Amino acid sequence: MTPEEFRAAGHAVIDWVAHYLEMLEQYPVLAQVEPGAIRDRLPDTPPSEGEPLEAILADLDTIILPGITHWQSPRFFGYFPANASPPAILGDLVSSGLGVQGMLWSTSPACTELETHVLDWLVDLLGLPPAFRSSASGGGVIQDTASSATLCAMLAARERTTDFATNRHGVDRPLTAYASSQAHSSVEKAIAIAGVGKDRLRLIEVDDHFAMRPDMLERAIRADLDAGLTPFFVCATVGTTSVTAIDPVAAIGTICRHHGLWLHVDAALAGSAAICPEFRWVHDGVELADSYCFNPHKWLLTNFDCDCLYVADREPLIKALSVVPEYLRNVATESGAVFDYRDWHVPLGRRFRALKLWFVLRHYGVAGLQRHIRHHVQLARTVADWVRDDPAFELVAPVPLNLVCFRHRGDDAFNEALLSRLNASGELFLTHTKLGGRLVLRLAIGGTYTEQRHVQAAWDTIRASARALSG
Amino acid sequence: MTPEEFRAAGHAVIDWVAHYLEMLEQYPVLAQVEPGAIRDRLPDTPPSEGEPLEAILADLDTIILPGITHWQSPRFFGYFPANASPPAILGDLVSSGLGVQGMLWSTSPACTELETHVLDWLVDLLGLPPAFRSSASGGGVIQDTASSATLCAMLAARERTTDFATNRHGVDRPLTAYASSQAHSSVEKAIAIAGVGKDRLRLIEVDDHFAMRPDMLERAIRADLDAGLTPFFVCATVGTTSVTAIDPVAAIGTICRHHGLWLHVDAALAGSAAICPEFRWVHDGVELADSYCFNPHKWLLTNFDCDCLYVADREPLIKALSVVPEYLRNVATESGAVFDYRDWHVPLGRRFRALKLWFVLRHYGVAGLQRHIRHHVQLARTVADWVRDDPAFELVAPVPLNLVCFRHRGDDAFNEALLSRLNASGELFLTHTKLGGRLVLRLAIGGTYTEQRHVQAAWDTIRASARALSG
Repeated sequence: MTPEEFRAAGHAVIDWVAHYLEMLEQYPVLAQVEPGAIRDRLPDTPPSEGEPLEAILADLDTIILPGITHWQSPRFFGYFPANASPPAILGDLVSSGLGVQGMLWSTSPACTELETHVLDWLVDLLGLPPAFRSSASGGGVIQDTASSATLCAMLAARERTTDFATNRHGVDRPLTAYASSQAHSSVEKAIAIAGVGKDRLRLIEVDDHFAMRPDMLERAIRADLDAGLTPFFVCATVGTTSVTAIDPVAAIGTICRHHGLWLHVDAALAGSAAICPEFRWVHDGVELADSYCFNPHKWLLTNFDCDCLYVADREPLIKALSVVPEYLRNVATESGAVFDYRDWHVPLGRRFRALKLWFVLRHYGVAGLQRHIRHHVQLARTVADWVRDDPAFELVAPVPLNLVCFRHRGDDAFNEALLSRLNASGELFLTHTKLGGRLVLRLAIGGTYTEQRHVQAAWDTIRASARALSG
Repeated sequence: MTPEEFRAAGHAVIDWVAHYLEMLEQYPVLAQVEPGAIRDRLPDTPPSEGEPLEAILADLDTIILPGITHWQSPRFFGYFPANASPPAILGDLVSSGLGVQGMLWSTSPACTELETHVLDWLVDLLGLPPAFRSSASGGGVIQDTASSATLCAMLAARERTTDFATNRHGVDRPLTAYASSQAHSSVEKAIAIAGVGKDRLRLIEVDDHFAMRPDMLERAIRADLDAGLTPFFVCATVGTTSVTAIDPVAAIGTICRHHGLWLHVDAALAGSAAICPEFRWVHDGVELADSYCFNPHKWLLTNFDCDCLYVADREPLIKALSVVPEYLRNVATESGAVFDYRDWHVPLGRRFRALKLWFVLRHYGVAGLQRHIRHHVQLARTVADWVRDDPAFELVAPVPLNLVCFRHRGDDAFNEALLSRLNASGELFLTHTKLGGRLVLRLAIGGTYTEQRHVQAAWDTIRASARALSG
């Protein structure tokens, strides 16, 4: 394909995507297919000779689209959002077009420097502590997901605690870590990967608002110390997955400082809210954190994958992850004047992900992003009011940001049937969690294209379905 | 940005990329900037209000491009290639446009099923063992990089060896792993991350062709067994980073089977060659492997990131990495009829990366991809002949595929000066390694747009520079 042919083909694909965005509201949100249905329509072997683009685009329509759950639909309210946006798509297109691999500063200086720069911008925009800036002791790096960020934070903590002996000799002492019972499953995944063991993760009790209880954290740490174990890592969550509970980071951080534990703050969803001054309180206490992450790919209009990990001191992270073979040695690295981001995460290679974030920040501007966040929070509060006002439903958790957790006053079986019916309708998509042993429906608002009318329609459908089920 | 505005903006960005591809040969291959040069040109704060796309594209030209090392340049011969292609760019654009997140089958069935299907296609295309097919006990998954694939393989091995106790209790016994002294640094990175410890990685001596010596592997395993340690993992390399040496996988695999060790085969670069029947010998012995990976983002015209990891038995991998919180429970998962790829790697979320691979396989067809591989190998052999025929240079390793390792007969300082001069010229880009303590230049041929004339010009420049330096 020559550049000229690419131009024509590219326009056709852009048109396909534009048409997809135009049609987005028309599709059933949740894919309505059975396991194997997509594969059954794909040929057993790839073609021997190349096929025209038209054939591929036609198959996108007929084979792929029926198997898509439409995360960008304005009627997608499941999990947490993964809100892409047109400028993010285009920034990522430039990244694919340039095709650079930024493992070292020298392998594309702009890839590293734009990332460092944009992540420094976000320190100010989100009210994060100055130590996170690259010009201070810390710095930021784009990871694929918060799961990877949590793993890297835990590895840095493991090494700092063991004076970098674990990297060399393996896990040679009983380390213990702490997170609330509502923390994300990635903490458990990370501690297994890191060779510390899931048994060594203490899930700390939460209060009535599902936030970690610092007194119980203190108690757990003391019990482990008394038992001769080595506490090393605490994960506080700002915006838990089930209910967007906000752990008391300042109180937790004080305990961590006292005992010399690494504090990681997982603000995957909620961190983006801090771009609005009125929500910046979500970062209270983060100045006590050793590391912190949030996901622009969740709620800052930047398409997956884009998690921003910050550290207050980059040295333990780099020492935990750096390996320097001869074939990667270069003058810039040895000068010490540059960041080589390969030492800040698990993979060696990396694509130019800062471009999409840069496109988003410039296209919307800070004010434009603030408007999106405020709009979503306002919609969530509206839904919360509707739930409160309806005697058939109950609100089961506070709504600090953009997630509404509620349930029908019927039993779990009723709520499960309601959820199935709603999702099978294709009219909207919700997911669930369990709180206090009871099934709870989650309605997360963060779609780039979600408006009041979509939320209104969703609530109407929920009520009508509940009435029909109550029959 | 409305879909209609996206259409216009998208055409402009496609045109920008097309123009970039047209101009690719004109740029100095290695970015000619000092540390901080790119950041110095970026504003200290992002804009408050949004900016037009034209302003962003203009800054791409004036600020970003000078800081790009052009991996897609036909004159880029460094490291291993990361060869993107127009259809891969477009497949990735569709992925960004759809914006789906495929952590579970149910969160977009097509994202999982197309990936499984295309990876099954590749089992046949590359002559990989039938056990790697999803319909057998194994299956394939796309990871970001071979580093992550190696880590996941090692974790599966760790768990299988310890009867899944390590996940729960941490690394509780002295495990040992093995790779050749020429293996990729990611093995060392993985063993540190996994909590086993770098001290427990045995780097096995290589033969005259830089391939692992099975007799030395056997000896190392026996020594560890005699010392009461627990050997658990061997990484064989098919196409080492320094010289594309091919470890004797069949002999290594036989030893692994005898001792019950997990065999991982890292074919990151060389695996793609097997799409040509005449190079399928690189996979001799892979039928004894427990896991295997290769990178379409290196040499199969698919843009970064795209590493394919295969396992012969998916159970240990999934058991090593699965954590199932309530909020991810769903009917499809519990039916057991689907793959949830979140359990096959470190991250939870994942983008729809199979699309770019599917676009590539369909656009080029098998024959088109074979032509690319054959062309690159032919060019490398031509360069090797030129080196052999020039008394000022020597070939320092066999050229089984697309990498030529050579040096000027001058000393290391001379070769280092030559390398610096060549890369500073912008005319071409090479990297180096050390073999037997001596500096060696590496010329890797795998660019999508690399033709005979680029290779000829590179060799002419190398000779002329050497003469000038000798002068």
